[in-house]
Formats: sequence, C-alpha cells, structure tokens
Amino acid sequence: MKTLTIRSPDDFHVHLRQNGMLDRVLIHSAKHFGRVLAMPNTRPPLLTEHDVYPYRGEILTKALHENDWSPFEILSAIQITDATTPEIVRAARIPCVAGKLYPAGVTTGSDNGVSDIEPLFPVFEAMQACGMMLSLHGEHPGAQYDDIDREAAFMHVLHRIVHLFPDLKIVLEHVSHRAGVSAVLKYDNVAATVTPHHLLLTMNDVHGAKLQPHHFCKPTPKRFADRDAILRQVLDGHPKFFLGTDSAPHLRETKECADGCAGVFNAPVTMPLLAELLERHGALDRLEDFTSRFGAEWYGLRLNHGTITLERVPWKVPEHYETVVPLWAGRTIQWRHAD
Amino acid sequence: MKTLTIRSPDDFHVHLRQNGMLDRVLIHSAKHFGRVLAMPNTRPPLLTEHDVYPYRGEILTKALHENDWSPFEILSAIQITDATTPEIVRAARIPCVAGKLYPAGVTTGSDNGVSDIEPLFPVFEAMQACGMMLSLHGEHPGAQYDDIDREAAFMHVLHRIVHLFPDLKIVLEHVSHRAGVSAVLKYDNVAATVTPHHLLLTMNDVHGAKLQPHHFCKPTPKRFADRDAILRQVLDGHPKFFLGTDSAPHLRETKECADGCAGVFNAPVTMPLLAELLERHGALDRLEDFTSRFGAEWYGLRLNHGTITLERVPWKVPEHYETVVPLWAGRTIQWRHAD
Repeated sequence: MKTLTIRSPDDFHVHLRQNGMLDRVLIHSAKHFGRVLAMPNTRPPLLTEHDVYPYRGEILTKALHENDWSPFEILSAIQITDATTPEIVRAARIPCVAGKLYPAGVTTGSDNGVSDIEPLFPVFEAMQACGMMLSLHGEHPGAQYDDIDREAAFMHVLHRIVHLFPDLKIVLEHVSHRAGVSAVLKYDNVAATVTPHHLLLTMNDVHGAKLQPHHFCKPTPKRFADRDAILRQVLDGHPKFFLGTDSAPHLRETKECADGCAGVFNAPVTMPLLAELLERHGALDRLEDFTSRFGAEWYGLRLNHGTITLERVPWKVPEHYETVVPLWAGRTIQWRHAD
Repeated sequence: MKTLTIRSPDDFHVHLRQNGMLDRVLIHSAKHFGRVLAMPNTRPPLLTEHDVYPYRGEILTKALHENDWSPFEILSAIQITDATTPEIVRAARIPCVAGKLYPAGVTTGSDNGVSDIEPLFPVFEAMQACGMMLSLHGEHPGAQYDDIDREAAFMHVLHRIVHLFPDLKIVLEHVSHRAGVSAVLKYDNVAATVTPHHLLLTMNDVHGAKLQPHHFCKPTPKRFADRDAILRQVLDGHPKFFLGTDSAPHLRETKECADGCAGVFNAPVTMPLLAELLERHGALDRLEDFTSRFGAEWYGLRLNHGTITLERVPWKVPEHYETVVPLWAGRTIQWRHAD
C-alpha cells in the first residue's frame, strides 16, 4: 500500500461557524490540518479584537475535548466593514493575521460587506503600516455584472489598492477566474488561496444537465479555461498559490431548497482529493508545498511541526456528516487519511 | 381597471407530461392558451404516430372533463432519435407538425437524444419533402464545452443543416444566447421560440448570491447581453420570434434536491408576466402578435378564434400549485388572467 507522509497542512481559509455547526465540523479541520485561518463572517461577525478572543476560545475549548487530535492552531481575522477604523485595525493586530473584506452581498454572510472601498483607505493604510494581510473576496458586487464576470470585474479594484498601498500584502481568496490568476502573477504583493473545488469543478458541475447545490459556492466555478489556469499554477508549484479550502458547511436543508446557500463543505476530503488530483497529473510531489509551506511563507509564519499520512486506498466519501453533505459525497476516491 | 383582450395565444413548446403530472398542469395550459404544441419527451417518448394518438387522446380526455375551458387544441411532435427513419417521418406527418431533436444528454428526457446528426440526413430529407418542422434543442452536447457556450457551439450544426436542406423549416427552441438570435436573423428558414423566463432571467437569477433551482432550466439563462438580445427582437415585433413557454413542471422534491431537474413551470404566469414585461418597455401592443400570430404564421396554421382577457390588478403568484412551484412563486405581478 502506497502511503504519503507530509508536513501537517495549513488551511488559510475556512469557515468553522459557531455553536452546533462548529461542533459538527471542527473535528474535520482539527484532525487533518495543523493550522487554520478561521473566517470572521460568523453571526454576529468578528469586527474587533474583542470579538476574536471569545470565538477563538470557543473553538479551542471544543478542540481540547478530543485529546487524540494532533496540535491544532487557530489563526484569526477580523471582518473589514464600512465601520472599521485604523484604531480597530491596530488593536486587532495581535490576535489577527488578516482583515477580511467582502463586497456587499456577494456571498453567505456578506450582507454587512463593503459597498465602497474609498472610505476604507485609512484602514488599508493602517493595515499596511502594521503588517496585517488584506484578505479579499474578489468579486465586484455591481448589479450590472454577470455572475461569472464578477472576479474579473473586481481586478480594477485590486489594481487600485495595489497601486495606492504598495507595501500592503494581499490574498485574493478562492481564486476562480483566469483574470485572478493573472493578477496574482502580475502583482508582487498579491497571492491567492486555492480551494480544492475550484481545482476540480467547472460551471458544468453546478448547472449541467442537473443542478448540483453541493457544488454551488461563491465565486462560482467557471470555465474549463479558468479551472485549468488555476490548476496550472499549482502543478507548476508557484509559491503564491496555496491552499485555502473555503470549507463552508451548511445544513443540508439550506442547500437543497428553493434559495440555496453558497458554500462547499470539503474539510474531510480536501487532502485525499488533492492527492488524487495531483497524482493524476504526475505532480504528487507538489502537494506538500501547496498545502504546508507556501501559505505559511506568504504569511511569514513558521511551518507546522506535525505530519499527516495519506494512504492510497479507495475510499467512498460518506453521503453526509450528520446533516452536512460533503464535496464528492458518495463518490469513491483513491486516497484517504490514514488516521 | 385596465383590461386587455387579445386573440387566444399559442404555446409552441410545452411539456404537458403524463398521468398525475398531466392532471396537475393541464388546466393551466388549457385555460390560458388556445393551442399548444406538446413536446414528445414523455416516458416512454413519442417516437412514431402510434405513440402520438394515444397521448393526444389522454390529454383531450382530461381536458374535456372540465367543460368551462375555452376551445383547446393539441399539436403534436415526434421525437427524432437515432432510430427515426424517413418512413416514420412520412407516417407521422398527419398527426405531427414537427419532429423534435434533442442532442444526447443535454436536458430532462434527452437520454435517448441524438449523438450524431449525419445518419439522420435521410430523415431531414423526408421532413423537408413532407413539410414537417424540425424543432431543435440547440445545444451542443460535447463534453468540452462550458455550459453557457453550448447554444453558440451548436450554431455550426445548425448552419450545416440549413445549407444541406434549404427548404427544411426549422425552429430553434427556447433561444437563449445572442448567437442563436443572430442565426435566426441570418437564416430565412429558421425561427425561434422564446420562453418568458429567458426574457426575464439571467445567470444571476440562477446562481447569484443564492442558488435558485426554480430558475434552473436548459438552456441555462445566460448574460444580460443575451437576455436583452432576445427581448429586443420581441419588442421590435420580429415575426420569427414567437412564444413557446417551455413550461416544464417537476415535483418540488425533484427541484429542491442534490441533483435538481431542469425546467421552469410557467404556464399559470406566462401571459401576466409577458404583459407586465412588455408594458414596462412600452410595448404592450406587441403582446398579441408575439403570443397569438407569429407562431401560427410560421407553422402555416390558422389563427385561434377565441380570446383571453388580462386585467391590470396586482396578483401574488401562488407559492405552489399542488406540489409544483411556478415561476415567480410568491412574488407580486401587475397583471392577471381575468377568468
């Protein structure tokens, strides 16, 4: 049996949620990842360092209940809204590696998102000065844009930020369009998180012959050309493209309904799916850097100490974990976690 | 109160289904339309004239049960599959105005669709000779195409048919892309049916901030530019663009699920929605030609004798009709059927 032991991975973009949902999903991130950056679009959202500490406490308390988990570290972010000030940024710098900016209304929990970036320039200035990463959901919310153009349309916003704040480090989250890939290649201070589903899916997997809500996420999976442009960077081992799963659990009934929530729950299957995908492309040796090195280096963090082991044994992904349906539910993949 | 009485409309593309579903939906077509072309992708499909007569009998028997309905006429089509022969076409010419061709696998009930048109050339020849309309679901099934490109990719197939069979009359069904609009304008013998939902929706209404399965259909609603190109022809009163609702009922549980069926049930709301849309564009006077003249003229049929009356009274569309959710469910529109 083929096995693969690599440095414990980082997930630089995950939605751990709260309360009952946190109870359900935490184990999957805690078992398989050494460190995660927990997104702040909780309800209520994490807007200041005062919100961050109790949330991190909630997560770590739950994680400690299971003493067989490997070391597990939480990184935090505040959400940048119209109400964020430079003072808030400076105060949040200690517990937070990043400030996450959602344009208004583009995805789950973005109803308090930003409608105009210009009033936030002093905030970006403060982030630049204190070394806080600007984490961008890079979709333009303008009503005039077709959904699949939103990321490309956002690039002029990104361009403006990059030129006004030349020392601000930026992560273009869950890159989904070839325009986003090009921007990362073009701007020294912009990197991207890459999700497993944007490496695997296209629009055909969302609205092909059937509609597949468990593949529906924001930004929406796009063309073959987009998916392949992202995959190319991962296969080439480009250090500015690193794993952020955007694992985003929703109760099944809020996905399979008339008004379905955006988000793919992939934490249990991300590493097996990536191993399978990279192996298929003869690039299994790229896995560890993509999942366990490049992101940490971009954020200026030490690498994780632990390891995880994957084994090449066909594994049928469960149809659901309690009431949450994972990516690739019911399908067989060639790798699984050894633990 | 403003009312509008127009010639009873034709629906040149409707899925009436069978059995229990036919029981549920027939009343909406029978009450609001004078004549409909019932699609043949039933289960089993209508492949020869022998299948057509009993199906038409089933529909008319059910329609007669309700004696307050206006005169209601059924037009029929057979499905063109790899097994269709010129003999089948000639025999079906009496009960059928059209032969409907689905490429394999592009939509609901297209699993027996056509994979290669070339072996069907003798069939097209026979259709041309006996004056049977070729009704095309114009989406290329090739796995290499992104879903939103399928209609544009089909245009080279259409081009080939048009040039090889210059006297064959063709309807490009449920036109959804500006390339389809251009083809209709370019080829004398090609017209298009237009659905209410392709005049109203774009991809943003299917996979915007939320996923909306009741807007999911094939071909999928596309860009603003596509929707507006179709609408332009209707507003201009182009006689080769006429109503075919593609009303396609599915049980709610087969829409709101992990693997949702394609199809929009619009029969109860089509005429009110069209009145509202055309009025908003100052083109209410285009309604009657679009719904009650152009299609009949294209098919060479007499116009309907009856009338329908719409009244300008705000009306909340029901959340569901039994277990089927209609287009615009729960939303208020400005027109309603007076009967």
